[in-house]
Amino acid sequence: MTDTPAELKTLRDSIDNLDAALIHILAERFKCTQRVGELKARLQLPSSDPNREKLQIERLRALAQGAHLDPDFAEKFLAFVIKEVIRHHELAKAPS
Amino acid sequence: MTDTPAELKTLRDSIDNLDAALIHILAERFKCTQRVGELKARLQLPSSDPNREKLQIERLRALAQGAHLDPDFAEKFLAFVIKEVIRHHELAKAPS
Repeated sequence: MTDTPAELKTLRDSIDNLDAALIHILAERFKCTQRVGELKARLQLPSSDPNREKLQIERLRALAQGAHLDPDFAEKFLAFVIKEVIRHHELAKAPS
Repeated sequence: MTDTPAELKTLRDSIDNLDAALIHILAERFKCTQRVGELKARLQLPSSDPNREKLQIERLRALAQGAHLDPDFAEKFLAFVIKEVIRHHELAKAPS
């Protein structure tokens, strides 16, 4: 692609760097939630915690506002990630 | 919540830190895509670029694999973010 304007190329390089950071942080986040799942199973705690989730949503909406990110998007993003966490937990519990 | 086990509290603190990082990186990513949208409008470039998107997917899947993150999740995540970028671009173009 020799016809990509230099400014577009620069912005795309930044987007690629930020995406790499996002992927690595998400990988780390799933390590934590996997350990949470194991801990909850061991302690026989309920897998979902609506009170904790409510606090997470409020906190992320406030952080998003401070960072000039749409708070609704931050909430949708958290829901998207939590959905995947639940899917992982269910796969872990499924009989092999 | 005084009955949260210490180990669960520690893991949740890490998840909260990682979520704050994700939100701030996403905010920065949307700043970049907003500038891409403005640039493409100015240069009259097509708003979508399937070739670029294909390369992004391949790259993120490879990065995910290296970070022990499900590559399918990485691809779904990119689709989720791009969908929001398109929504932003459409809002920006909508008559006020």
